[in-house]
Amino acid sequence: MSTFLIPLDSRSRDPVYQQICEYLKVQIRKGRLKPGEKLPSARGMAQNLGVSRSTVDLAYGQLVSEGYIESLPCKGYYVCEIDGMYFPGEARKADEQEDTAKRERLAAGEKEDYETDFALDGIAPGGFPHNLWRKLARRALAEGEDQLYKPGDPCGEPGLREALAGYLYQARGVRCIPEQILVGAGNDYLLLLLGTILGSGRKMGMENPTYLSAYYDFRYTGFRIEAVGQDSQGMKTEDLEASGADTAYVMPSHQFPMGMVMPLKRRMELLAWAARGEERYIIEDDYDSEFRYKGKPVPALQGFDGNDCVIYMGTFSKSLAPSVRVSYMVLPVRLMQRYQNRGGLFAVTVSRADQKILELFLKEGNYERHLNRMRAVYKNKHDLMLRELKELGDIAEVSGENAGVHLLVRLKNGLSEQEAVQRAGKAGIRVYGLSEYQISRKKKIQESTVVLGYACLREEEIREAVRKLKKIWDIRENYE
Amino acid sequence: MSTFLIPLDSRSRDPVYQQICEYLKVQIRKGRLKPGEKLPSARGMAQNLGVSRSTVDLAYGQLVSEGYIESLPCKGYYVCEIDGMYFPGEARKADEQEDTAKRERLAAGEKEDYETDFALDGIAPGGFPHNLWRKLARRALAEGEDQLYKPGDPCGEPGLREALAGYLYQARGVRCIPEQILVGAGNDYLLLLLGTILGSGRKMGMENPTYLSAYYDFRYTGFRIEAVGQDSQGMKTEDLEASGADTAYVMPSHQFPMGMVMPLKRRMELLAWAARGEERYIIEDDYDSEFRYKGKPVPALQGFDGNDCVIYMGTFSKSLAPSVRVSYMVLPVRLMQRYQNRGGLFAVTVSRADQKILELFLKEGNYERHLNRMRAVYKNKHDLMLRELKELGDIAEVSGENAGVHLLVRLKNGLSEQEAVQRAGKAGIRVYGLSEYQISRKKKIQESTVVLGYACLREEEIREAVRKLKKIWDIRENYE
Repeated sequence: MSTFLIPLDSRSRDPVYQQICEYLKVQIRKGRLKPGEKLPSARGMAQNLGVSRSTVDLAYGQLVSEGYIESLPCKGYYVCEIDGMYFPGEARKADEQEDTAKRERLAAGEKEDYETDFALDGIAPGGFPHNLWRKLARRALAEGEDQLYKPGDPCGEPGLREALAGYLYQARGVRCIPEQILVGAGNDYLLLLLGTILGSGRKMGMENPTYLSAYYDFRYTGFRIEAVGQDSQGMKTEDLEASGADTAYVMPSHQFPMGMVMPLKRRMELLAWAARGEERYIIEDDYDSEFRYKGKPVPALQGFDGNDCVIYMGTFSKSLAPSVRVSYMVLPVRLMQRYQNRGGLFAVTVSRADQKILELFLKEGNYERHLNRMRAVYKNKHDLMLRELKELGDIAEVSGENAGVHLLVRLKNGLSEQEAVQRAGKAGIRVYGLSEYQISRKKKIQESTVVLGYACLREEEIREAVRKLKKIWDIRENYE
Repeated sequence: MSTFLIPLDSRSRDPVYQQICEYLKVQIRKGRLKPGEKLPSARGMAQNLGVSRSTVDLAYGQLVSEGYIESLPCKGYYVCEIDGMYFPGEARKADEQEDTAKRERLAAGEKEDYETDFALDGIAPGGFPHNLWRKLARRALAEGEDQLYKPGDPCGEPGLREALAGYLYQARGVRCIPEQILVGAGNDYLLLLLGTILGSGRKMGMENPTYLSAYYDFRYTGFRIEAVGQDSQGMKTEDLEASGADTAYVMPSHQFPMGMVMPLKRRMELLAWAARGEERYIIEDDYDSEFRYKGKPVPALQGFDGNDCVIYMGTFSKSLAPSVRVSYMVLPVRLMQRYQNRGGLFAVTVSRADQKILELFLKEGNYERHLNRMRAVYKNKHDLMLRELKELGDIAEVSGENAGVHLLVRLKNGLSEQEAVQRAGKAGIRVYGLSEYQISRKKKIQESTVVLGYACLREEEIREAVRKLKKIWDIRENYE
């Protein structure tokens, strides 16, 4: 047993026990202290170093818990045998080089910069009700105190769910009790969660083209996916039946990206399809139903469901802001029962504070007022888009109008979708080819079509961009 | 074609077009208007009712979009054929009865009420830094404006991830660049997400007993789960090897529920196990590492990983509050690459506002100060628990001390776990049987042991409850 001369630095910010600890670690790492070697007793070491016994106890305790030494009862402390040990201290020297290498491996593709982006997510600039939100946030944080920071209900706070049930009944004809609602941080999460409730091995029927995020959610949840044909009324029920799917994902209020509204008859056919099987479900994604510019909103499919088979999904991403991260799902009673009765409910993914803010927002008519304001904003943009796109003349056909915040333009002058997108890109305008939303090459989709989201653009920007597009897309003009 | 006498109510809050619409719907539903029957022209109807043409256009448009009537070009409007149609209007009459029935089906089991709950989630009353949080929330909401409400980075905001990487390096020895971090709303979500990145068909090795939520997350993600033996140092690597698992879930800083710290040697063995296979991963859940009352925190396993195989998970649920819903995961570069390169990244599950607040909280030393304060609070409770539990004398053995916010008590006087829990319950004290955290009956776990979380309890409550437990659990005393 050697006598240690541990250089202790009384001016160091590291406490003495830690200096002892670090010194011994280095000795062990460098092999100067060999496995099996006995260390001085704590008392001996303390005397040796002129420190208190408890300081050495602390250092030894630390070394034991990190596995460098072990304490054998009545015998003392011994250096451990450690196979293939390597140490963060040494490894860190290479950090900077290593970090650069990591960064290169993870470098995401450079994003191109466009002057105008007909993006399909996002909201109108200035559309978020900042002042009100801040006020409600203050109230929510003040009212809650400690309650707000206890674990909440895994399905969502009762207050928010009650407010949602009321809103959904009034505005969308959804018939549910608050206990059927699951609150979650976005549709991706809710669809993953739904996947764990429905169980694996299911076959999902989706329209083609469709909402790609949902497609990926299902794919990564372990669904098999069948592309089902659609016509001007939405998903074809006979194709759905033929596909062998047991679950169907539809957006009856405003299909994305095609923009059609599913008429009542087709809705009834879908419900009849679901009723023909024991465990068939329809997922109704009502993502932008708040924005309808002609007539009254068509009630949700869920309100017509007499067989406990419609899963209704709604979100605040379009109606409030995508970064608020709150969506909700109304489950059929039998599915909610299944979730409740299983072991391990997942913890809710929205903070209680945010849930409280949203509850206040819904309860005091704020949401209605906000929606009315935004509906007017988007209707103006929608009408402007239609007027400006009319200027394209007979080279283009517009569809998907009267609802939502995007439109489709089909080019009839022989310009391909790819060319249309590229020409726009060269002029600094980002438009989206319809085929990006295709989930199967087998089912034909409308050719030469681009999708234009207009929520995020200012009116002047829309005017200018569409005028540019007219020039760029008119082949005659270009080659005159 | 009949002449319609539609009773229009000019004082009604419903607009006229809607009254027309509703009236015609009822006629169609009741069969007074038959499928195939022709409606008056819009002009004729308008004259007939003394309303404007555009009002009737609106009503007809609505009926078309809901599928009640169809418009045949150059011919007019016809009532649709609708098979098996049923209507929400009628269905709603039964709503109240229906709602009661639903409520009964979804009634969750009544929660028993305890005077004292040694709960394992939650934080110290008064432990949440309200004032600071409110201040930072105001700053975050004021600074961001519209930026805060645009869709954010699917992996988490760069600012927060940078702050996290800095904190993790300093406090936990985690070596990563911000690009390796995924921010998410809680561990359940992050483990589901991880499941989609790792892919299905994997075999997960877990200690027995273990953290049940993780067990369920993996189960519902499609992992096969193997219970792996553990001893006083944590998961046994030879058992792990023998299990055939390709992924291991461990909590080296403070195993839940057993409370042991994994020594360095075992950590190295685990890393060696992972290095022996191409696609082996270790999930290191560092859920409560912030609270260690003796010596310096043991650095994370991740910091020793030279083979890009440790997935590090951390959370603010213990250190800040469970309801804040922010966790994070440091992925090996190769897994982050795999995620980035796949189609369909999931949208982030934490609002940008909350991410911004947390970034400010981390960056300005607030978190460190908060942790120091909480560490002192919990250390006092920890020491008090140990002192009070000592009073149980030789009937009990305490373990899992020096870290975290829970302790284990093994009863050595022949009292079974079930009896111990029941006796406590009768006295108004909720304690948790160790076997609740058991994931396999085949692997033996420590008998007659209860788990006591003390984070949420006031010191006086702890004192009183433990004194009661002493009486209740001491069989001699009870039967004297």
